[in-house]
Amino acid sequence: MSNKIYFTPGPSQLYHTFNDHFREAIKNDVPSISHRSAAFIKIVEESTEALKALFNLPDNYHVFFLNSANEAWDRIVQNLVEISSHHFANGSFSKKFHDFALMQGKASTVNLVNDGSSYLDLKIPEDSELVGICKNDTSVGYTFTEEEMAEIRQQNPDKLIALDVVTAAPVLPVDFSLVDTAYLSVQKAFGMPAGLGVWMVNDRCIEKAAKKATKSNIGSYRSVLNLKKFSDKYQTPETPNMLFIYIIGKIAQDFLNYGAERMRNDIVYKSAIIHQVIEAHPALNHFVESEKHRSKSTIVVNTTNQKAFLDQLLENGLVLGTGYGPHKKDHLRIANFPAHSRESVELLCDIMQNIG
Amino acid sequence: MSNKIYFTPGPSQLYHTFNDHFREAIKNDVPSISHRSAAFIKIVEESTEALKALFNLPDNYHVFFLNSANEAWDRIVQNLVEISSHHFANGSFSKKFHDFALMQGKASTVNLVNDGSSYLDLKIPEDSELVGICKNDTSVGYTFTEEEMAEIRQQNPDKLIALDVVTAAPVLPVDFSLVDTAYLSVQKAFGMPAGLGVWMVNDRCIEKAAKKATKSNIGSYRSVLNLKKFSDKYQTPETPNMLFIYIIGKIAQDFLNYGAERMRNDIVYKSAIIHQVIEAHPALNHFVESEKHRSKSTIVVNTTNQKAFLDQLLENGLVLGTGYGPHKKDHLRIANFPAHSRESVELLCDIMQNIG
Repeated sequence: MSNKIYFTPGPSQLYHTFNDHFREAIKNDVPSISHRSAAFIKIVEESTEALKALFNLPDNYHVFFLNSANEAWDRIVQNLVEISSHHFANGSFSKKFHDFALMQGKASTVNLVNDGSSYLDLKIPEDSELVGICKNDTSVGYTFTEEEMAEIRQQNPDKLIALDVVTAAPVLPVDFSLVDTAYLSVQKAFGMPAGLGVWMVNDRCIEKAAKKATKSNIGSYRSVLNLKKFSDKYQTPETPNMLFIYIIGKIAQDFLNYGAERMRNDIVYKSAIIHQVIEAHPALNHFVESEKHRSKSTIVVNTTNQKAFLDQLLENGLVLGTGYGPHKKDHLRIANFPAHSRESVELLCDIMQNIG
Repeated sequence: MSNKIYFTPGPSQLYHTFNDHFREAIKNDVPSISHRSAAFIKIVEESTEALKALFNLPDNYHVFFLNSANEAWDRIVQNLVEISSHHFANGSFSKKFHDFALMQGKASTVNLVNDGSSYLDLKIPEDSELVGICKNDTSVGYTFTEEEMAEIRQQNPDKLIALDVVTAAPVLPVDFSLVDTAYLSVQKAFGMPAGLGVWMVNDRCIEKAAKKATKSNIGSYRSVLNLKKFSDKYQTPETPNMLFIYIIGKIAQDFLNYGAERMRNDIVYKSAIIHQVIEAHPALNHFVESEKHRSKSTIVVNTTNQKAFLDQLLENGLVLGTGYGPHKKDHLRIANFPAHSRESVELLCDIMQNIG
């Protein structure tokens, strides 16, 4: 590894145990054993159970391995939406989920507000079958609160709710009983290279997919029904990214050993000191105006002096994210994941407050 | 790595340079840099161009990165088949491609013969839009000859031809001008962990997908048209398995440096000495009767004494594949990939001929 520390919001810094787990995987021939072997079934079991424990998943949930959050958008629409879904969108990633639904020919609707702005209401059209919410939009650093999720759940008991937890889980507290399906990719908070997605679905999703399958197509090898059939035996429909499935289980176990609550408290501490720097610095402003909607894991900052911050931090080996999409030149994005130690964040803060 | 050598047909033995490339990738922060950075665009370019050179791809071909050959089956049907495709099937994997077409609701047809048997004819229904051929069915070790592929091409100039080269490329000579699209996964002949697929398509496929898109759905982020749009700039629609895209380029370059022809000659030599052992041994028989259809890269052997072979080879650290599906207990499957050195194959042969 170089001497740099990546505060980019994903791909990001590798978690400090990643290389050890990789070496152990190679030593144990994880990339060469059969994906149908007892040894690999045990790996899938251990990774699945570690993730369930880490996320405190309700009993009626299943864990499937995909390749990315993009794939999860696709599979959710393909399996769980017949006619229409509704999406809350105020950033590039929450918008993209709606785009994916349209690309699959759905009559999906969107509550679209300016990037990073709060939603004016949480109403959902009567005929939406599924509601898409982004817990933490990585492009703008906007967080949906647990209270809002509870309200949506309460007012829409018959609709499925899909939650994007890409930069949210396991670093922000998420109550998975308020939603029916959630998904993430591992190059964010898990501190892994890109190439694996985790898709969690509850029994209501299985039932909906089974119902949809009687009327229309829900896909082939990675339909919900096929994924569940294999996952029930801790297997996968095809040869998956075995190495990364092994490693995510080990990292999830590391998080559990460290203490999931303690890890989330670290995130709170580190976000607090970054927020202090932003609030004290004349050249920096929070992009998200509403304080309770500011993400603690992906901190997005407006600045008129982006280049100075990026350059001077890079001179010190710290790599920050630029803005995403239309905000490319105006924002700094700072990831706050378990891979970012307290010390590295304190160093970041020390340098930032003296820039400009 | 353990002291074992995996002759299993995939997942299989890692190529001997894999670990070095992994370490170099980590040193260069490949898992942490942005997938939109100039550095990663250069990686995609180098990997794409190395693969084009290795496969001697015609100029009208494009290289896309997927996650597996299973995904390629799905995407081919989704993008390139409106009503019907036709499939040649005499093993589990060639059958599965047909199954995938049916699961997507296509009226696809199949020329199905007994596992490992030769096809009685190469006729294709008039209204098939695409022909699915498995160059080398990994489950039974049956190879389609280049002459047969040329005949199909000549007699069906208007149909698209899709070639499964999962255990065939780059170890068997394949003339990609005889087909329109081909695909593989990297845990076979490239000696890598599973989790990356390579999908090659020519301009005829792009045109067909564009035509299909005007009438029906061709998918979202990984439609042929979207993949091409990004691949034209050496990018990918989403954050891909960046680490493996880096490594496949390096291994392709290793093969080119060694000499692609020389590597294929090694495959011929190693298969010849394995074939000699099979033919001389009273307890072993080729599963594929037709000599010219026997795979040189996935050698499938009938045996009445499977356990003795598996156990005694394993005592010597050599792991062979069992049979696939219905042949689980009756066959030995022996992979012959670049990761299997001449010395390791000679050792395998020495031990095998003294068993039983």
